[in-house]
Amino acid sequence: MDELVNRVLHGEYRAAARLMTLIEGQSVEALAAMKRLYSHTGQAELVGITGPPGSGKSTLADKLTEEFRRIGKTVGIVAVDPTSPFTGGAILADRLRMQRHSLDPGVFIRSMATRGHLGGLARATNDVVNILDAMGKDLILIETVGVGQDEVEVVKTAYTSVVVTVPGLGDEIQALKAGIMEIADLFVVNKADREGADRTYLDLEIMLDQSPFKGGWRPPIYKTVATEGKGVKELAEGIVAHQAYMGREGLRDQKATERVRALFQELLRECLTKRALERISINGTLDFLYQRMARRELDPYSAAEEVLKRVGL
Amino acid sequence: MDELVNRVLHGEYRAAARLMTLIEGQSVEALAAMKRLYSHTGQAELVGITGPPGSGKSTLADKLTEEFRRIGKTVGIVAVDPTSPFTGGAILADRLRMQRHSLDPGVFIRSMATRGHLGGLARATNDVVNILDAMGKDLILIETVGVGQDEVEVVKTAYTSVVVTVPGLGDEIQALKAGIMEIADLFVVNKADREGADRTYLDLEIMLDQSPFKGGWRPPIYKTVATEGKGVKELAEGIVAHQAYMGREGLRDQKATERVRALFQELLRECLTKRALERISINGTLDFLYQRMARRELDPYSAAEEVLKRVGL
Repeated sequence: MDELVNRVLHGEYRAAARLMTLIEGQSVEALAAMKRLYSHTGQAELVGITGPPGSGKSTLADKLTEEFRRIGKTVGIVAVDPTSPFTGGAILADRLRMQRHSLDPGVFIRSMATRGHLGGLARATNDVVNILDAMGKDLILIETVGVGQDEVEVVKTAYTSVVVTVPGLGDEIQALKAGIMEIADLFVVNKADREGADRTYLDLEIMLDQSPFKGGWRPPIYKTVATEGKGVKELAEGIVAHQAYMGREGLRDQKATERVRALFQELLRECLTKRALERISINGTLDFLYQRMARRELDPYSAAEEVLKRVGL
Repeated sequence: MDELVNRVLHGEYRAAARLMTLIEGQSVEALAAMKRLYSHTGQAELVGITGPPGSGKSTLADKLTEEFRRIGKTVGIVAVDPTSPFTGGAILADRLRMQRHSLDPGVFIRSMATRGHLGGLARATNDVVNILDAMGKDLILIETVGVGQDEVEVVKTAYTSVVVTVPGLGDEIQALKAGIMEIADLFVVNKADREGADRTYLDLEIMLDQSPFKGGWRPPIYKTVATEGKGVKELAEGIVAHQAYMGREGLRDQKATERVRALFQELLRECLTKRALERISINGTLDFLYQRMARRELDPYSAAEEVLKRVGL
């Protein structure tokens, strides 16, 4: 494991990929590695990219990567795959993407599979971000759909958040208005060659005019056609400008502390449940409890209290 | 609280709404009420409706409600609002929906706001479903976007899952293929008057042909135009047919046990973290830990272990 850690710190791809797989498999050794890597984190810029399915987030992330490579920055991409709770694996499209960049040693792409129902997505994603950070990647793009509590938590921990929309979603703007607004540092109207792009742009402008935004940053709106690379350079410049703003105002440090707190609480949440269930599952206690609950002889609320009592909390 | 419970059991709407608000506010008294209500649950049919933003899930849920009301069933709708992690409230559209049905005493609609970053969405949603169940609603529609770990967990606990898609999403079918496939009991191509509906239908058929589906149920595909009510009757009949199948094969009981287990584990997860953080937060221990982590003097993995040790786990 010591050797694996050293290889990750030297930026070796195979070692990083191996450690990420161990993390996803919830290996105990991986935890030891993460402890050792942690002091080497904190340098990378974290950029979240979020938007509804079909908005072209992945293509945009790919083109942004090209743009950042052009100015000499190394890039890590973490794609949180919303479809994986069932399959436990990355979807085909992500595998193809990895091949596309696989010859560039400055790019590392990892798709996150969501697993088991005791959570872990946010925790595992944060771990993968930390690995890319410790590897020395300058910029890490974290790509998720903009819905889902865990997914949103993941994006919230980025220092810069890009919210992507597309023309003609209608209700979507309404949803954005109610929701994503507060985390967006930059907006993108992707597929801007489609009908209704100007309308979507205007809707966003009006929304921004009506919203009290805090501090000295008004989220700019970019029109892009990611498939053709249009508008991507401007977006990349906008991201860099936001990073400069965050650093200047001391907001980056603040976000970094929030990020650590979120990572810690996720970890704690995961470990606590695991340990507690392990401790009480001896002698088939759990199965017995489930059967009684299914027969309505015991309610799950009292059962949970009983477990808390047994583990001394 | 005893009176509130009795009023809920008598199907009183104000009482139910009040209890739901207490639940969302994580009130301790609400927990006592949930314990008492639990033995009155287990009768309702639970139907999950999931699909991407803009696929018309809400309209479909409304029209299905009308259809089920026509055959004399009482209906509860739980709309898990994907945009709420930020605002803590239901979006406007949902409020309008509630007004639409508000004159019908056979319908109860509740939008779920996602709160705080220590989770709770799945737990609170399950509680609301249990309240509707104890109230005596025959059928409970649980409506969520088909992405997001917690959101998917919520739908997984339903006895019948309807997956909604719309023509022209392209990538979406790919995502369905990789992901939602395994939970879908029925598929819907909504907005079926749009270009590409036949193609989407065919894509789903081909996908189903290629997938090994377990047991004796091949998910049927329905074309609907929810805004006009087209195809909704057939879909409602399909849902009833699936419920009959589940009952006949003993699969409903199996699902019900899984549901109880999921609810219990969610509860446990939530309580454990809350209690543990409470216990160690005395004397500013937590803030001190966060500061050390932010300075990279302490890694969050070791910090979590330290907390586990302190609470004796």
